Amino acid sequence: MSTKESNIDFKSSFPGSKKVYVQGSRADIQVPMREIKQSPTSGPQGEEENPPFRVYDTSGPYTDTDYSADVRQGLPSIRSKWIMDRDDVEEYTGRGLKPEDSGYQSVDTQDYQDHFPGLKRKPLRAKKGRNVTQMHYARKGIITPETEFIALREQVSPEFVRDEVARGRAIIPANINHSESEPMIIGRNFHVKVNANIGNSAVTSSIEKEVEKMTWATRWGADTIMDLSTGKDIHTTREWIIRNSPVPVGTVPIYQALEKVNGEAEKLTWDIYRDTLIEQAEQGVSYFTIHAGVLLRYVPLTTERVTGIVSRGGSIMASWCLADHEENFLYTHFEEICEILKMYDVSVSFGDGLRPGSIADANDDAQFAELNTLGELTKIAWKHDVQVMIEGPGHIPLHLVKENVDKAHDICDEAPFYTLGPLTTDIAPGYDHITSAIGAANIGWHGTAMLCYVTPKEHLGLPNKDDVREGVISYKVAAHAADLAKGHPAAQKRDNALSKARFEFRWRDQFNLSLDPERALQFHDETLPAEGAKTAHFCSMCGPKFCSMRITHDIRNYAHEKGVDLATAIEKGLKEKSQEFRDSGSKIYK
Amino acid sequence: MSTKESNIDFKSSFPGSKKVYVQGSRADIQVPMREIKQSPTSGPQGEEENPPFRVYDTSGPYTDTDYSADVRQGLPSIRSKWIMDRDDVEEYTGRGLKPEDSGYQSVDTQDYQDHFPGLKRKPLRAKKGRNVTQMHYARKGIITPETEFIALREQVSPEFVRDEVARGRAIIPANINHSESEPMIIGRNFHVKVNANIGNSAVTSSIEKEVEKMTWATRWGADTIMDLSTGKDIHTTREWIIRNSPVPVGTVPIYQALEKVNGEAEKLTWDIYRDTLIEQAEQGVSYFTIHAGVLLRYVPLTTERVTGIVSRGGSIMASWCLADHEENFLYTHFEEICEILKMYDVSVSFGDGLRPGSIADANDDAQFAELNTLGELTKIAWKHDVQVMIEGPGHIPLHLVKENVDKAHDICDEAPFYTLGPLTTDIAPGYDHITSAIGAANIGWHGTAMLCYVTPKEHLGLPNKDDVREGVISYKVAAHAADLAKGHPAAQKRDNALSKARFEFRWRDQFNLSLDPERALQFHDETLPAEGAKTAHFCSMCGPKFCSMRITHDIRNYAHEKGVDLATAIEKGLKEKSQEFRDSGSKIYK
Repeated sequence: MSTKESNIDFKSSFPGSKKVYVQGSRADIQVPMREIKQSPTSGPQGEEENPPFRVYDTSGPYTDTDYSADVRQGLPSIRSKWIMDRDDVEEYTGRGLKPEDSGYQSVDTQDYQDHFPGLKRKPLRAKKGRNVTQMHYARKGIITPETEFIALREQVSPEFVRDEVARGRAIIPANINHSESEPMIIGRNFHVKVNANIGNSAVTSSIEKEVEKMTWATRWGADTIMDLSTGKDIHTTREWIIRNSPVPVGTVPIYQALEKVNGEAEKLTWDIYRDTLIEQAEQGVSYFTIHAGVLLRYVPLTTERVTGIVSRGGSIMASWCLADHEENFLYTHFEEICEILKMYDVSVSFGDGLRPGSIADANDDAQFAELNTLGELTKIAWKHDVQVMIEGPGHIPLHLVKENVDKAHDICDEAPFYTLGPLTTDIAPGYDHITSAIGAANIGWHGTAMLCYVTPKEHLGLPNKDDVREGVISYKVAAHAADLAKGHPAAQKRDNALSKARFEFRWRDQFNLSLDPERALQFHDETLPAEGAKTAHFCSMCGPKFCSMRITHDIRNYAHEKGVDLATAIEKGLKEKSQEFRDSGSKIYK
Repeated sequence: MSTKESNIDFKSSFPGSKKVYVQGSRADIQVPMREIKQSPTSGPQGEEENPPFRVYDTSGPYTDTDYSADVRQGLPSIRSKWIMDRDDVEEYTGRGLKPEDSGYQSVDTQDYQDHFPGLKRKPLRAKKGRNVTQMHYARKGIITPETEFIALREQVSPEFVRDEVARGRAIIPANINHSESEPMIIGRNFHVKVNANIGNSAVTSSIEKEVEKMTWATRWGADTIMDLSTGKDIHTTREWIIRNSPVPVGTVPIYQALEKVNGEAEKLTWDIYRDTLIEQAEQGVSYFTIHAGVLLRYVPLTTERVTGIVSRGGSIMASWCLADHEENFLYTHFEEICEILKMYDVSVSFGDGLRPGSIADANDDAQFAELNTLGELTKIAWKHDVQVMIEGPGHIPLHLVKENVDKAHDICDEAPFYTLGPLTTDIAPGYDHITSAIGAANIGWHGTAMLCYVTPKEHLGLPNKDDVREGVISYKVAAHAADLAKGHPAAQKRDNALSKARFEFRWRDQFNLSLDPERALQFHDETLPAEGAKTAHFCSMCGPKFCSMRITHDIRNYAHEKGVDLATAIEKGLKEKSQEFRDSGSKIYK
């Protein structure tokens, strides 16, 4: 993998931008932002400066021109000192890598040769009797460096961040073994976040491609990454991703556990699953999707559905339950799971294994039966100070979207809701980034804290780089539309800055302030490629005579020349022409 | 232009489809539908047929394999006999073509050479004292052939169609001089419709390209077309489009009027405008956007806006009003306009000249002041039995969307609302088909009758063919999501058919039932191109072991083999293992 390519890409993706850091209360709290330069406004009154505009930045050190990326070494461990200073963790030898972790028979394999070379440190875990979750600290009233980092990032007070985490209304996914990650928060009272799924499958893809997708997705704004890999090299793929990821990484551990039993669900055991949790916790996964709410007695509720069970994890657990008519071991062992999670600060993201996979199945008994169980499990997790998210559907028509958030918040006491889409119709494979961005914007507006992206390839194939970009930007659109609608105080500033640039024909600023400057520029240049067109006071849509914005400027200049405001100018004009207006006045002004 | 190309395209765009016609009460009422063939379901019980599925079809005769398209001759006049049978119209010599109609100095020009060769008939108009609007007939209790055609198309009763039109809650845009058009209806109690804007500008495009965009847009599902051409050849471009369009064509006549005065708004006069209305009515335009609500006294309300006036027509009229401090002539002459419209059955679509062009300006005083005036004008139009639509914004954050529909319905007495988007954020040029599909789905859900598409090029450039397709499909998604949410009885059938096909691994059926089968197939084949993968019981996303749908089938087959339903099987299993369950039962089942 090349090392410096990322920096070069950054410049073409985001021209006019530079990386800046907001300094916190201690030297090592440095919150990244992307600062967009603006050109001045030219008007009848002369030039007026437009201040540089700062945006939330998920892209990590790769976009810092002073940083030399080397994916074989991984990112710097910015949180190590914070974690060690708390004096509640210990290094230990760890579980060690086993051949079956990546699907091989012996250690003498490709997997070992490809294993990540850069990690020199041993895994950390909580000292005996200690709890290292951010929720635990928050409940003790401690403002951690992570909390302060997030407060600066979200432009709220550290106390507010702490209170929301203590309350369980927000989570900070921050495994102590992923000290490379930049702290971020997921909760209804913060910016709506976007997750991007990546991962190879038994059928396609490779480690390099997945790491590249991760840096690519975070460049465009993904706030977390889920590695949903299956098949060979699953451990190694994850190691490369985590060591190079500036954002928290989530997984679905049952996928790897199933690989370890050759895909035969009935052979899954609690021991294999438990071992997989520890394996992944030691690597630094920050949240686990756990399908603990798929109970045996709920499975029959899915038999009359149009699309049955559409969650991989849900179907695996349903299959396991039926094989021996036993209750879901994720449910029966949930307290033990919590004991593991709190040793590493892995958040639990309760999987919605019985989510609807079609409009016909939306908001049905199976779905809500599982949600009730998730409410019960949330309480157990919180008893352990384990941070919780609740996953949601899926396929939901618009008028039933709000009920999903409201129920989740009600049943799970406002634990952050994290939804896939939802898709608002089934009839557009190839466009499911759009069918679902519609649902995502709506569900975000009503309080959903994180949106799992859907790419144009959903239902059809694995996303390539272009699909990842399309999916992430579509979801940044949905998340931002939701932030505006829920009244996030900072959200509209960017809309206003871009619209002002648009109105003032500052084309370059309009492009640079957008979510995807590269595409905006490219689309503009398809019809008007000349450099002069980037300062033109019209564009290819209307041409100069029909440009409403040019005409509006003329109107304003007219008022300016008269030295009065427009209302007065009109009033004056009306008086001058009073006789004329009186004649027809009764018709015009009623 | 080639003649038969369209038919070939159709097959690749919609494999598995054929054109069928539903026969009405008279031989010449033949309602087009696209019928999608489905393969049978294979299950443990053997094979089961899936009936062919019919969808609404806007593509016109081009997609009929028995039809030979010749764009130089235009489409057949399917409504001629219906119109003549009513015995209330007369042929007349018409206004004739003037050189300035297409922006030339004399008749000895390219324009004349390119003029449409196929139209042999003279223009029609209402006989003296007669009114030929569909609203007029509906109010007289007459069920026209157009009404019956629409009833079959929408699967409702003709009486219902008539009542909605009489009430003003729906319109049938059907100029008597566009007898080639297939009747369709726009109203809140029918399928949500999609309009596609096309048109060249002074800067780019050509007649051929615009005609091609029209056939292309209607192929993918556009219900009406607006020709927003400016610049040279405006009359000729429109002639070619109308003669070949199976859907109603709308225009903004002020654009052409402005061309006739060389783009100098202050030179516009009522006479020039009036003459342009007649010119276009004779050609067969079915609805005119008229910015009659932009009153002089509203212009100052826009001066503090972030983006001022963003409607071309709005800015032209504001500029005209200010030039001499006169009231908008579209307002002062509106009764005379109605006299023209009812002679040809041109519907009026009241332009929202003061619509917001940014989130900051949404739902402001200027916008709602204009809307109040539109309410007043609606009553005048209805007095003449002139059909009315109300145009709406623009740029609106999600939480303010519903207020727009509610106010429009309230103030304009439920005249059909027709919106551009709205875009729910300003920050994503290049993705405005998505920022606006979100708003469009929401506003459609709340009762908006037609959605004007936005392409990815919005704010950046003129759409090409790919952009038109992307825009139309994005809006078909929004319209369908709205139909589902507002509870249109027929809408969910297609979702159910597609989801059933998906669940049963009928890949070809899944593609063919989708809005864009060609793209669905192409995306699928990017990862699994082999023909066998179209019958595989898994796909590239999860591979065979992780396929939730395969596992669900296994679960169902398991129950089937046991000869009982799953709930009973589980119950039975539970009893067999009762002792084991009793031991841990109190924990599992509370």
